[in-house]
Amino acid sequence: MNKRVVLASRPIGAVTEGNFRIEEAPVPKPAEGEVLVRNLWLSLDPYMRGRMSDAKSYVKGVDIGEVMVGQTVAEVLESRHPKFGVGDTVLTQLGWQTYGVTREATKIDPSRAPPSYYLGIVGMPGLTAYFGLKELGQPKAGETVVVSAASGAVGSVVGQLAKLWGARAVGVAGGAEKCRYVKEQLGFDACIDYKSGALREELKAACPKGVDVYFDNVGGDILDTVLARMNLFGRVVVCGTISDYNSTDPYRVRNWRAILVNRLRVQGMIVFDWKDRYGEALKELGSLLAQGRLKYKESVVQGLENAPRGLMDLLAGKNFGKQLVKL
Amino acid sequence: MNKRVVLASRPIGAVTEGNFRIEEAPVPKPAEGEVLVRNLWLSLDPYMRGRMSDAKSYVKGVDIGEVMVGQTVAEVLESRHPKFGVGDTVLTQLGWQTYGVTREATKIDPSRAPPSYYLGIVGMPGLTAYFGLKELGQPKAGETVVVSAASGAVGSVVGQLAKLWGARAVGVAGGAEKCRYVKEQLGFDACIDYKSGALREELKAACPKGVDVYFDNVGGDILDTVLARMNLFGRVVVCGTISDYNSTDPYRVRNWRAILVNRLRVQGMIVFDWKDRYGEALKELGSLLAQGRLKYKESVVQGLENAPRGLMDLLAGKNFGKQLVKL
Repeated sequence: MNKRVVLASRPIGAVTEGNFRIEEAPVPKPAEGEVLVRNLWLSLDPYMRGRMSDAKSYVKGVDIGEVMVGQTVAEVLESRHPKFGVGDTVLTQLGWQTYGVTREATKIDPSRAPPSYYLGIVGMPGLTAYFGLKELGQPKAGETVVVSAASGAVGSVVGQLAKLWGARAVGVAGGAEKCRYVKEQLGFDACIDYKSGALREELKAACPKGVDVYFDNVGGDILDTVLARMNLFGRVVVCGTISDYNSTDPYRVRNWRAILVNRLRVQGMIVFDWKDRYGEALKELGSLLAQGRLKYKESVVQGLENAPRGLMDLLAGKNFGKQLVKL
Repeated sequence: MNKRVVLASRPIGAVTEGNFRIEEAPVPKPAEGEVLVRNLWLSLDPYMRGRMSDAKSYVKGVDIGEVMVGQTVAEVLESRHPKFGVGDTVLTQLGWQTYGVTREATKIDPSRAPPSYYLGIVGMPGLTAYFGLKELGQPKAGETVVVSAASGAVGSVVGQLAKLWGARAVGVAGGAEKCRYVKEQLGFDACIDYKSGALREELKAACPKGVDVYFDNVGGDILDTVLARMNLFGRVVVCGTISDYNSTDPYRVRNWRAILVNRLRVQGMIVFDWKDRYGEALKELGSLLAQGRLKYKESVVQGLENAPRGLMDLLAGKNFGKQLVKL
């Protein structure tokens, strides 16, 4: 049987277990041009909170009763598609279920990196970090780059790339343990614990020459605090507003005027705008990873039935590294 | 005697007459390398509200007891500077006073345009409109450009340039009379009266294909309303936040997330960042003006003693066209 998690109801405020329903259904049969796959790994990502809503966003939300969306790493069990053979490892968009049929999959090479990495550092989050920082943030050597959710799948790559490209990297993360990891393992120059209650003072101390690039995954008060420290002609990459995702009343930004005063450039970042250039970025990320110049950490939840809890923890900042479900 | 207006106290909230003091002092003598001028026209601009404050901004504020800053058109009465002769008409930064000495002036040609125009359409406001729209807004033919404070010195030029460059121009202004002027005299495609109480609906009706470029002079609720109507990859030029200038509690922007969802590019605009290219823009603006392809309106207050009231009216949106004081 195929086990799947469907959207049972739309969350109002925080996501709850009751917003999901676990169902069983027969394993589907592949039609001509399709493959049947077994999902091995499911990626959990902050964007999923948006898809649970019916508010207008950059992609349509999940309908009630539909399988939750998500990227998976899967194994081909049966192929009626000329490009795939039984046993191939592929990336799919089959979402929160154990089996599925699709005609759209991407073959990956499990000898180059562990399959789950294609959901992280050599996947969507790594690409988001790469293009957001390189093309929108455009850090120059010696500049200061601040990134929020610094221990997460995107943030951890942003800061490491900033360092590799000659900038000073300052992370913002929740809690002493994450901050220690960001500094000691990932090699950031500094990491600020936003739970310390002294964000403003610590940001000032960590960025004595101000902030040139802010890669923002969280929005909210952290965003406002960093906006107030931006340098002339600084860049803000708006990649996420996770602090708002569970809020019924969006945070209201008070330092808009900083954009004028410091002639900031603030831009929204969605990874699929860069899909024509994924190859270039994956080559670079893969090579840095192989050379041991990029560190990477995963946070794994066991079993599809625990995916809802995994997403809730991710949205609450309880994860540590790239959040995955092992199926 | 030299009559001058100095900053007597910093406004808290709205500017009042009491924030200014009118003084008399002897007419100064020019030193070697200086000219003595009589100011003929004083420009009043929204940025002056910022200079009355001691909050950090892109330029230091006016000190208490100092002459209020401002650009003037002046006549040279006495010259000890090799580049200027008696009778020359010049632009200066001498501020709110009837006479002054300076070594920094720019000669203007009163035969090419009326001298006061060098404070407006062929001066700082025209340059602001030109570079903000061309370099940051980057409208393409067929796109929709919205500009707030559309009947003002900057806004009126933004919309007319948008039309000349092949875009649809939609203004936002306060009151039916200004809106009629914007449509009928300036030739915008539409103008929305933000005082009508139906901004959102009227914006939607005036921009059936959404908004590609928003040139924002006002901030506040108008900004939020336009943000919600921006198209994918739209551009926001942050040129002013006049709705906030008299506020002790800055407006908080609720639609920040639109930047992410629609991958907007939001940039701050200060005209002097473009000073190396003023010549190019003035040539273009002067030529369009001479050909009658740019319309221009002035709002004139008589006498230096009425400058404070002129600024207060400007900040309250009571002016109609470029605000000047005739000295």
